[in-house]
Amino acid sequence: MNDKAPLDFWFDFSSPYGYLMSERIDAVAARYGRRVRWHPVLLGVIFQATGSQPLVAGHDAKARYALRDFHRSARFMGISFRQPSRFPLPTQTAARAYYWLHDRDCGLARQFARAVFRALFVADRDISAPAAVLDLAAAIGVERQALAEALQAPELKARLKEACEAALAAGVFGSPHVLIDGEPFFGADRLPQIEHWLETGGF
Amino acid sequence: MNDKAPLDFWFDFSSPYGYLMSERIDAVAARYGRRVRWHPVLLGVIFQATGSQPLVAGHDAKARYALRDFHRSARFMGISFRQPSRFPLPTQTAARAYYWLHDRDCGLARQFARAVFRALFVADRDISAPAAVLDLAAAIGVERQALAEALQAPELKARLKEACEAALAAGVFGSPHVLIDGEPFFGADRLPQIEHWLETGGF
Repeated sequence: MNDKAPLDFWFDFSSPYGYLMSERIDAVAARYGRRVRWHPVLLGVIFQATGSQPLVAGHDAKARYALRDFHRSARFMGISFRQPSRFPLPTQTAARAYYWLHDRDCGLARQFARAVFRALFVADRDISAPAAVLDLAAAIGVERQALAEALQAPELKARLKEACEAALAAGVFGSPHVLIDGEPFFGADRLPQIEHWLETGGF
Repeated sequence: MNDKAPLDFWFDFSSPYGYLMSERIDAVAARYGRRVRWHPVLLGVIFQATGSQPLVAGHDAKARYALRDFHRSARFMGISFRQPSRFPLPTQTAARAYYWLHDRDCGLARQFARAVFRALFVADRDISAPAAVLDLAAAIGVERQALAEALQAPELKARLKEACEAALAAGVFGSPHVLIDGEPFFGADRLPQIEHWLETGGF
């Protein structure tokens, strides 16, 4: 047991830097006795509300750089990465499945989230397809039919909508976004600052 | 003497992350026997060509985060930083003065560039004012009247315009942007990757 507040980690399943953060944040937090709450959101909703644009919107210099930086940052961090054939892609089914699992078994939801990220960024699977999401869930022991039915229900759509609204209210404007005791950190490249913050209690 | 190609470093004098990079890049490069060529440009020109927006365009969550991150990143890197009272601000006079000096004495130009950055981000001086630029140059031994006259001449305006065009041709889309043997690095937070790249010759 520890009484330190958990970290909050917002991401979109289609975010390469979100994936890189997801591969490290739990271990970094654990070194300082902290847990992490994961919150998948939809960048489309976040960007519409904040007026931002996706990194890889066109084929200009910035987009070309981003594609190069995804790979290089992954190598720098020692994380497997493959640029998905379909990118970006819709992630609402995966995110809804996550919240449905989370409300039943948060450990299983974490396992599912890791599987979704790796399916997209290592195995290059199209995780926008409901069948792919159901396969990934079934592979870790989730009852496929129950999840398939839940994904059709308005309650679960509302659950994700609320998660996006809560993210906006917390100041989230992109992925990944980590909040530690009120201090926001944006981007996988802020991991060294996150670790230093946890170590020092703020600097 | 060394026969390794110099690094190229593009920045706008009003860029906080450009300032942070400017305080470290020469020393990092020198550890690996490399020199750095500095190229001030105008982000307004770069953003207009690439369709990007300034970080602190409004008062939304992203702009609030950026203002917070400037300070935190500076503390993390051990660099003095004060948020300028006037921000962002025009930097064409400072950039033109830099190129005029550079074509006469590149060591003096480097010294001038450091003085401009520190005047803005440590002493909170309005470096958009021609008088401030002339004062900074005069303080390091530049003949004030000669620079004042050069700043009025079309040749120097063309020199900066060419520098911006060359930056765009090299794929620059923001500040700071560093190029090492064809490999681009964007942002002060890429400094650890830059160092690793110099150390390993690419990873």
